[in-house]
Amino acid sequence: MSTSRLETFSDGVFAIAATLLILNVDSQVPSDVADLGARLLHIWPSYLAYAVSFVTIGIMWMNHHTFMGQIERADRRFLMATIGLLMCIAFVPFPTRIVAEHVRHEGAQDAALLYGFTLVTTAVMFNITWFYAARGGRLLRPDADPAIVSGITRTYLPGPWIYLTATLIAFANPTWSVILFLVIAVVYVLESSIFGTSGGVAEVGDL
Amino acid sequence: MSTSRLETFSDGVFAIAATLLILNVDSQVPSDVADLGARLLHIWPSYLAYAVSFVTIGIMWMNHHTFMGQIERADRRFLMATIGLLMCIAFVPFPTRIVAEHVRHEGAQDAALLYGFTLVTTAVMFNITWFYAARGGRLLRPDADPAIVSGITRTYLPGPWIYLTATLIAFANPTWSVILFLVIAVVYVLESSIFGTSGGVAEVGDL
Amino acid sequence: MSTSRLETFSDGVFAIAATLLILNVDSQVPSDVADLGARLLHIWPSYLAYAVSFVTIGIMWMNHHTFMGQIERADRRFLMATIGLLMCIAFVPFPTRIVAEHVRHEGAQDAALLYGFTLVTTAVMFNITWFYAARGGRLLRPDADPAIVSGITRTYLPGPWIYLTATLIAFANPTWSVILFLVIAVVYVLESSIFGTSGGVAEVGDL
Amino acid sequence: MSTSRLETFSDGVFAIAATLLILNVDSQVPSDVADLGARLLHIWPSYLAYAVSFVTIGIMWMNHHTFMGQIERADRRFLMATIGLLMCIAFVPFPTRIVAEHVRHEGAQDAALLYGFTLVTTAVMFNITWFYAARGGRLLRPDADPAIVSGITRTYLPGPWIYLTATLIAFANPTWSVILFLVIAVVYVLESSIFGTSGGVAEVGDL
Repeated sequence: MSTSRLETFSDGVFAIAATLLILNVDSQVPSDVADLGARLLHIWPSYLAYAVSFVTIGIMWMNHHTFMGQIERADRRFLMATIGLLMCIAFVPFPTRIVAEHVRHEGAQDAALLYGFTLVTTAVMFNITWFYAARGGRLLRPDADPAIVSGITRTYLPGPWIYLTATLIAFANPTWSVILFLVIAVVYVLESSIFGTSGGVAEVGDL
Repeated sequence: MSTSRLETFSDGVFAIAATLLILNVDSQVPSDVADLGARLLHIWPSYLAYAVSFVTIGIMWMNHHTFMGQIERADRRFLMATIGLLMCIAFVPFPTRIVAEHVRHEGAQDAALLYGFTLVTTAVMFNITWFYAARGGRLLRPDADPAIVSGITRTYLPGPWIYLTATLIAFANPTWSVILFLVIAVVYVLESSIFGTSGGVAEVGDL
Repeated sequence: MSTSRLETFSDGVFAIAATLLILNVDSQVPSDVADLGARLLHIWPSYLAYAVSFVTIGIMWMNHHTFMGQIERADRRFLMATIGLLMCIAFVPFPTRIVAEHVRHEGAQDAALLYGFTLVTTAVMFNITWFYAARGGRLLRPDADPAIVSGITRTYLPGPWIYLTATLIAFANPTWSVILFLVIAVVYVLESSIFGTSGGVAEVGDL
Repeated sequence: MSTSRLETFSDGVFAIAATLLILNVDSQVPSDVADLGARLLHIWPSYLAYAVSFVTIGIMWMNHHTFMGQIERADRRFLMATIGLLMCIAFVPFPTRIVAEHVRHEGAQDAALLYGFTLVTTAVMFNITWFYAARGGRLLRPDADPAIVSGITRTYLPGPWIYLTATLIAFANPTWSVILFLVIAVVYVLESSIFGTSGGVAEVGDL
């Protein structure tokens, strides 16, 4: 299978999962709300959760394409792994709503754990998909750039541990756990911007 | 019509149907839930149903592309058959929610029957679409690989019967029927992985 | 603008509008339904409405591609007309639910009128889009097939009148109006199948 | 990264955001509505809001492609900016519902402000994305047409100020603010049509 079909399907899931996030914000304002202005301000965690999850899915989409750019072909095991990965990404809108609704109330801990384990699992699936493709160059392009390949490996490996740390902190303090998820997204955005500059023409071109 | 347009439309329906599945999980946790943690654990059938249906749609997407890879062109009858097939696939999120909600309660039988007949109909539509295209090589590529063509036929033919069996078991025991749908999905995943290895370079390359 | 981008966007809207139709069926079965089996049978108009609207959107997608196959380029007026057309198609899920819910109750007339005028407007927009592109060959490919061009014109022109007739019948008898929408969809399916056979290789190839 | 992948993802978000708008109309008619006809007429602001937001998203999609047609490649900063832009566009369905529900009641001011600031932010993100790409020709095609590049700049620069003006008017009169959003959409449609005529073959071809 040429990878272009896989990319169309994947792009679809990434785009839909990101766009469905707005339904979570929308559901926070019932039709018969008494004081609209107060309600729109009160639900600020929903806006923040929308932004964090949209950017997180967006960054995952960027990473997925950096990675697919090094892949030449797909076998059925690789397709199955990708379906598993997409299953995690399509799941993200659910914990996003739960966190936004409960971060200020009891239930914050359970919400943070749900959100965290979703991201841990997603990061693990990214690693499984990548290492299956990259191990021994199994599915890599013959001209795959070793610098980019090892760069992807370096970027993916710590992912599950970073998210696991932020998740486990929820046992001590759910608010800090949620703040950490926010910080991780911001760091990724800043890192992308810096990498975009310092990465040089070759890497950017192969992005 | 070049088949690439048909694939874009089909990929869209597959991707949206799969991604909409999360709405079924989401709806199980109302905003005013009393004990969030207990609720998140209580709805485990929704997670399982999400996973099974996502993987099932994913495998159907894989099969659809294996199949489209042998097709050269589309006529209007083939387009109509494909629309019928996509109509079945886009239907899957509905029985998925019903099964997840009712598998542990009265209504389990009706839920299993609804889910089962949806998959039976989908499998039948896959066969109709495939045999219309393949009969006498009507729409096949001139260089279609006979091994793959007969392999697809061998894979598709038992599909409706397997799902029908799992469905009819619901009359005796709905729980076992649902477990069987789960087992079928797992078997397909394992079979894909095994096929991915044993299939050899040629088949994988033509995937 | 190359028309391929316009097609990607259009395919997206067609695919999403069709796939969202299942939400209408889903909303008919509340979580706390007393007798699931009875409810699943009671909502049969929702299944029928789902099928009719899915097939209608599918046929419109087919027609849109037959038509785009004769188009070489897009100007901004043509893009605006296409956006207007897509706006009608994305509207279809709403009257579909209304008809399914009200066809057996008071409100059937209003529901049929809403559904009907949506399809009339859609058919009008199809004509506007097509005639803008085809008048004097404005946006047609230099090698556009005159037989197909006049075939599309012959197919599109009666569309608004057929749907208007079915709609106006709702003033006399809403049930017959709804049945007529069903019959129109079935006729289009049959016609497509027949056209697919009798159309000959040239037309099918240019589809 | 070739820009074609970015366009597939962007097209997906634009198409989904536009198509989800119908859910806002749909939610205005509950299943147990007493007088369907009266309700369908009563919710006319929802139809208008649907049309205005659909056309607005459609015009933004057109502008995005005019713009991408001048871009040769994407670096990670540009991808991040585009994700930010898409985040704004996917947000539009939410304020659209709020405006439609509250424009005739108390809450109109807050609704207009929410809608307005969403469009202001979107217009700002369009400028950021464009100027990052265009400044010094950073990501432009070597053969980018200077007339089109300066035309895009001329079109984008006033965007935030136009929307900001319409938004601030909500403090004096929310109804006029909402009417102004409607007028802006209509003007863009008319301008597109005129531009489509007067723009000449070269600009249209490069669209």
